Amino acid sequence: MLEELKEKVCLANKKLAEYSLVAFTRGNISGIDREKGLIVIKPSGVPYDELSANDMVVLDLQGKKVQGDKKPSVDTATHIVLYRAFENIGGIAHTHSKWATIWAQACKAIPPYGTTHADFAHGCIPCTEKLTKDEVSSEYEKNTGEVIARYFIENKLDPLAIPAVLAAGHGPFTWGTDCFEAADNAAVLEEIAMTAWHTRVLAPEALAVDDYLLDKHYYRKHGPEASYGQKK
Amino acid sequence: MLEELKEKVCLANKKLAEYSLVAFTRGNISGIDREKGLIVIKPSGVPYDELSANDMVVLDLQGKKVQGDKKPSVDTATHIVLYRAFENIGGIAHTHSKWATIWAQACKAIPPYGTTHADFAHGCIPCTEKLTKDEVSSEYEKNTGEVIARYFIENKLDPLAIPAVLAAGHGPFTWGTDCFEAADNAAVLEEIAMTAWHTRVLAPEALAVDDYLLDKHYYRKHGPEASYGQKK
Amino acid sequence: MLEELKEKVCLANKKLAEYSLVAFTRGNISGIDREKGLIVIKPSGVPYDELSANDMVVLDLQGKKVQGDKKPSVDTATHIVLYRAFENIGGIAHTHSKWATIWAQACKAIPPYGTTHADFAHGCIPCTEKLTKDEVSSEYEKNTGEVIARYFIENKLDPLAIPAVLAAGHGPFTWGTDCFEAADNAAVLEEIAMTAWHTRVLAPEALAVDDYLLDKHYYRKHGPEASYGQKK
Amino acid sequence: MLEELKEKVCLANKKLAEYSLVAFTRGNISGIDREKGLIVIKPSGVPYDELSANDMVVLDLQGKKVQGDKKPSVDTATHIVLYRAFENIGGIAHTHSKWATIWAQACKAIPPYGTTHADFAHGCIPCTEKLTKDEVSSEYEKNTGEVIARYFIENKLDPLAIPAVLAAGHGPFTWGTDCFEAADNAAVLEEIAMTAWHTRVLAPEALAVDDYLLDKHYYRKHGPEASYGQKK
Repeated sequence: MLEELKEKVCLANKKLAEYSLVAFTRGNISGIDREKGLIVIKPSGVPYDELSANDMVVLDLQGKKVQGDKKPSVDTATHIVLYRAFENIGGIAHTHSKWATIWAQACKAIPPYGTTHADFAHGCIPCTEKLTKDEVSSEYEKNTGEVIARYFIENKLDPLAIPAVLAAGHGPFTWGTDCFEAADNAAVLEEIAMTAWHTRVLAPEALAVDDYLLDKHYYRKHGPEASYGQKK
Repeated sequence: MLEELKEKVCLANKKLAEYSLVAFTRGNISGIDREKGLIVIKPSGVPYDELSANDMVVLDLQGKKVQGDKKPSVDTATHIVLYRAFENIGGIAHTHSKWATIWAQACKAIPPYGTTHADFAHGCIPCTEKLTKDEVSSEYEKNTGEVIARYFIENKLDPLAIPAVLAAGHGPFTWGTDCFEAADNAAVLEEIAMTAWHTRVLAPEALAVDDYLLDKHYYRKHGPEASYGQKK
Repeated sequence: MLEELKEKVCLANKKLAEYSLVAFTRGNISGIDREKGLIVIKPSGVPYDELSANDMVVLDLQGKKVQGDKKPSVDTATHIVLYRAFENIGGIAHTHSKWATIWAQACKAIPPYGTTHADFAHGCIPCTEKLTKDEVSSEYEKNTGEVIARYFIENKLDPLAIPAVLAAGHGPFTWGTDCFEAADNAAVLEEIAMTAWHTRVLAPEALAVDDYLLDKHYYRKHGPEASYGQKK
Repeated sequence: MLEELKEKVCLANKKLAEYSLVAFTRGNISGIDREKGLIVIKPSGVPYDELSANDMVVLDLQGKKVQGDKKPSVDTATHIVLYRAFENIGGIAHTHSKWATIWAQACKAIPPYGTTHADFAHGCIPCTEKLTKDEVSSEYEKNTGEVIARYFIENKLDPLAIPAVLAAGHGPFTWGTDCFEAADNAAVLEEIAMTAWHTRVLAPEALAVDDYLLDKHYYRKHGPEASYGQKK
């Protein structure tokens, strides 16, 4: 069942370790089969170098396990909320990567200080509100997804144009059209979080790039007018 | 004598080098056999890549050498005080790892700024008082242990819930149920020390996570209600 | 056609990845054959480990493709402007390397704080003016080159004596007598950007080295009186 | 001639590259044969991975080349002044390693913020005065040595107790009883420079460790009462 997707999700998870974005068993990636309405996700607490496609867990969008011997990631409910809210995404990654986590712990959005950011995201990477005591006490993981989804919906953001978010006091979630894009976006986010940190400390007065430069770089790489890369 | 424990302690010491937490011959790990009342510890000043299980030194809890050709770590007396004071720990690691040492040199506790910290420790990582001139002049290593033990006892901390401490002006000690957990905790401490440093500099006003989020994450991974990982 | 130059430019591009100055497909290096008036440049969006000499694209100095199956780098127009303005350079590198990008995002020149800088460049590494909305909207990449060239011409700088520039809000361009020197200069720039950042934060009052020390080190390594290295 | 010393000096130079303290051809190590009054030093501008013992240059303490096909390091005159002034040293290393260079560029001494420093040096790592225009214009490299030697003599410092110095606006020199100790000291200096930088930025009010703790750690590792390590 979903053998190809399980292979891909397993490989994408291993990429997190290759990119040095996760330590020990932390972090997780999932992918979705939109037609079947099923997601595939990393099992909880399994070291990356021991992961195989067979360890992946299949669940439906109500969170019911459909296949797999192992328990799914404890963050599964967050993934499910995001797949339901963001209908154009195909994969999600969650890490505690250092630089993105620093901004999340500081409860600050990452401004688009330069074109590396603009190549990646069409605006700042938002940081969520903190969860309330009630939201943490009951259905914490689901509520983590809700506070993210709410932010994007209220601010009318396209998740594919802003492919990352910082959960306040926690760490980043990234996504993309599939699980590999989610993994790559986690790596790019880490790089822009690192350079933004040093930009802010060097020049607290520094501003985000002008909108026209943000647009220029973003649309060079994304959308129908993109000029970057080779034709496929 | 204690051949299995010597193998483990030797391997755990080598993990410190693998994790890039020690340079040259610095740092040391020990483990304890509680039934026999004996500890096994790294010899003093031996490079990590030359260590073998046979080099490990066995001592009793009075600090008397029971077996071994080599001199034990100069920090042995600190380890012994901690094993006597913290009856639920099975292994101890001492390093001068960069980020934890930075906080120790600044004589500051590491606040739990995020959930990576909360997954690891149920509160801030304390920094000890500085030792007095008398405490340094005579029985320095023993007194280093005493000032740590005193802090935990006076503040009624469970050493397994706060598995690390910073010795002021010196560096970190970590521990766990065995010597491997002590080594892994030294690596996680380094990561949270790094992210906490950058959180503080980016946002001096940043606060520790709320107690309910600290509890949530800590108890997801620790204790009878833990939901993280696979059943063993 | 230009087989040797294509080999060199391909190799120099791969050096960017070896030096960890580029992530994914970002960055590009070109080289020029001054006699033929042709440049060779990396194709757009091709991963570094898949690059071969045959993928390189040949263009004339009007930007017309002369040979190659692939689309050239989106930054090609910038390279062409620089080759036309700086007649003594033979290779150009563009990266989004972290430390140089941080200074570019802060819109600040890098002062020559020490002799490592003086060994490399005979003065500060300038940061360009920001482009206007018009300059970004139309012929953005050409205008990026123009704002760089204008700065060097107005300030009467020898491009080989200042072999790097920061494009404001974007990232560095470096150059040299050939494409390998351009790549090496990108690596040295990264190192001086890193040390300058930390010098500034440690000592905001720090000054550039005195002119006589700048001269001493620069001319030990460059020009007819250079004493550094072996005779060729 | 001096074949064994040439082997050692060559190997010690390669250690600088292994320790990531040098980039490209920068940096140099020398060793001395006190009985013969001859030094052996790295040739100028040769990449570390191409160095062989035969490339090493032999000079007397007047700076006259005694053996070798290659030109010696441009910094040779500095080494010679130091060997003449510090009679108990047997090897010298010079690098532009990042963290030590940052302090040198900031023209600040590195305070002994912790016991890692105290294990290494019995007090702060001094930064020299800046050289005057005259001192740079004529015999620059010799004068770099003179300003270092003067500082140690005027302040009655034992070079083996303070085995490093920062040349203002330039970078570090380290030394030891032989060329390997000089290389290792360059690595330890880099580590304490990194942790001291972050201690200072985290806690500008932080003080050096108390003298009695400095003494305790220094004399645990150095001198006749040292308890660290195994008997030889």
